[in-house]
Amino acid sequence: MSPPSKAVVYDREGAPETVTKVIELPAVEVKENDVCVKMLAAPINPSDINRIQGVYPVRPQVPAVGGYEGVGEVYSVGSAVTGVAPGDWVIPSPPSFGYLRSIDDRNQSVTFSVLCNCNYVGNLPCIGTWQTYIVKDQSVWHKINKDTPMEYAATITVNPLSALRMLEDFTTINSGDSIVQNGATSIVGQCIIQIARFRGIHSINIIRDRAGSDEAKEKLKKIGADEVFTESQLEVKNVKSLLTNVPEPALGFNCVGGNSASLVLKFLRQGGTMVTYGGMSKKPVTVSTSSFIFKDLSLKGFWLQKWMSSDKAIECRTMIDYLLCLVREGKLKYELELVPFNNFQVGLSKALGLQGSHPKQVIKF
Amino acid sequence: MSPPSKAVVYDREGAPETVTKVIELPAVEVKENDVCVKMLAAPINPSDINRIQGVYPVRPQVPAVGGYEGVGEVYSVGSAVTGVAPGDWVIPSPPSFGYLRSIDDRNQSVTFSVLCNCNYVGNLPCIGTWQTYIVKDQSVWHKINKDTPMEYAATITVNPLSALRMLEDFTTINSGDSIVQNGATSIVGQCIIQIARFRGIHSINIIRDRAGSDEAKEKLKKIGADEVFTESQLEVKNVKSLLTNVPEPALGFNCVGGNSASLVLKFLRQGGTMVTYGGMSKKPVTVSTSSFIFKDLSLKGFWLQKWMSSDKAIECRTMIDYLLCLVREGKLKYELELVPFNNFQVGLSKALGLQGSHPKQVIKF
Repeated sequence: MSPPSKAVVYDREGAPETVTKVIELPAVEVKENDVCVKMLAAPINPSDINRIQGVYPVRPQVPAVGGYEGVGEVYSVGSAVTGVAPGDWVIPSPPSFGYLRSIDDRNQSVTFSVLCNCNYVGNLPCIGTWQTYIVKDQSVWHKINKDTPMEYAATITVNPLSALRMLEDFTTINSGDSIVQNGATSIVGQCIIQIARFRGIHSINIIRDRAGSDEAKEKLKKIGADEVFTESQLEVKNVKSLLTNVPEPALGFNCVGGNSASLVLKFLRQGGTMVTYGGMSKKPVTVSTSSFIFKDLSLKGFWLQKWMSSDKAIECRTMIDYLLCLVREGKLKYELELVPFNNFQVGLSKALGLQGSHPKQVIKF
Repeated sequence: MSPPSKAVVYDREGAPETVTKVIELPAVEVKENDVCVKMLAAPINPSDINRIQGVYPVRPQVPAVGGYEGVGEVYSVGSAVTGVAPGDWVIPSPPSFGYLRSIDDRNQSVTFSVLCNCNYVGNLPCIGTWQTYIVKDQSVWHKINKDTPMEYAATITVNPLSALRMLEDFTTINSGDSIVQNGATSIVGQCIIQIARFRGIHSINIIRDRAGSDEAKEKLKKIGADEVFTESQLEVKNVKSLLTNVPEPALGFNCVGGNSASLVLKFLRQGGTMVTYGGMSKKPVTVSTSSFIFKDLSLKGFWLQKWMSSDKAIECRTMIDYLLCLVREGKLKYELELVPFNNFQVGLSKALGLQGSHPKQVIKF
């Protein structure tokens, strides 16, 4: 049997600060193929919040334990488990299991159509990483190098893997080429800058106008950004005239929308591609007809959870190992803030933006 | 020597009704590889007008003869010409020659950047089909079957070839699949309906709300449209609920922009692609973040003139022959209005929309 687990649970969807509560879940049996993991750390990602709010297109059925990714230490193993042993560090990889499929039959897609006019069905169980002990089949767990800083191991999937996949999956970008992105201070943005940098790829970065934007610029340049502009700096006739020694980018990333997305499009070269992976401004992407016809731009989207549920996800663990290696070598850094599990509501409040601007909150169990 | 040529010439860019005039160009030498063609018919396409207005991204240098496509009869040939003989019907194919290339050096792209934020350089000479006699190298001319109705031969490239390419170049669409398009009453729209139909592909068509929209619907259904909706009919929560026996489309075509483009996006299935080839409403395309991330839509553009200047254009003449064959078999029809060359200004005025709604104007020489 596992120890009892203290878990962040919600039994209905709604405002996370209201619907979540920490309760003790009873001990469960550790079957022959199961691994019981004592969780060490797990982040509060925006998508975790959206799942609880009920606005994410694929969500666990309630009642559910919050959390999608994280890292833990093997506490005990079933009799048939050979790949991991107590004391090993493991992460759930991929972090969700079950099915995620798109369907043709429009009658089955009512729920998600309402949310996003898309056709996903079914609930995709998340591992529920916001709890002290998790018991799952050994196939769920990926053993990692224990020399990795815990908070990076806990957060390596959602943001760094997105950055890596987006750099690789849309256009061939070679050493000497460049990319452009908005929302560059986000963790994905910082990962893109750093991964691009040690591949010899230049990055052009767009950030919000705000107090402290000069410091933000310096920080991004320190981790390898070639060019950093605030949106207001780009209120010029030809944004490309601002580039020095950086070629026009063939690939752009948008996690903001609105004017900020238009700026990404302006930087793109003839035939370029913009990949949307977020919409922080809550404004849509607006594109002129001539951008499509004469500039031959392509616009696409990226969703890690869908990628995770595709055939490609078989490479997922290798890429995770690669990214963790970069972390250990000091080549991949980003800011995180640890919050003790006892103070979960404080971390949640910060993650919700209710206490001003804070780094990503990582629960330490 | 050729006979002298009566030609529609403009020596500066501007309002077409003001800057164009019909003048007589002197006789020119027919060299050994040249073919002298007596033009029979040539259309006034919107892009011809945009070239004269100076708002098209790639334009001939002025002074220039108007017109891009058309059909003519061989009048005389140079001594080395073997492929065609006097009396043959020919079309310029591809209709423009010279170079069209995209460049990296942003310093060279000033003119076109201003127009469309894109990077084409150079002037791409059009054949200048609005004249009675044209002398060009034999490589320019493609001999066609004289049984083809003249007005179709004159217009087969710009619209029908666009329709065919767009159906083939973006997503694999098989018999039983469907496509969705707006601006369905345009000639490209009508060609898409018909080519799709005899390939067993269903079409979902969106048209403007206007007087006579019921007649327009009937007309489109007669040529093979499965579903035709006015924009206001689509003001419902789930547009797909209106489809009966037509699968959700994986491919959409947009030549309108604005709300009409959003309706095309709403019909698309998970992972679908929308191709923009026009912007009749002069409104941009607006796309929600979730359409990219969760619905996984791709947005692209199509420009025939760029396609024509690519390697792929080698297949161009075969496709033209295929389309002309469909015309002769009665499988590809669209409305045209012949206007005698002597009344060019009347045809131009109708093409400019200054006299209400008219079919495409085709100059008959």
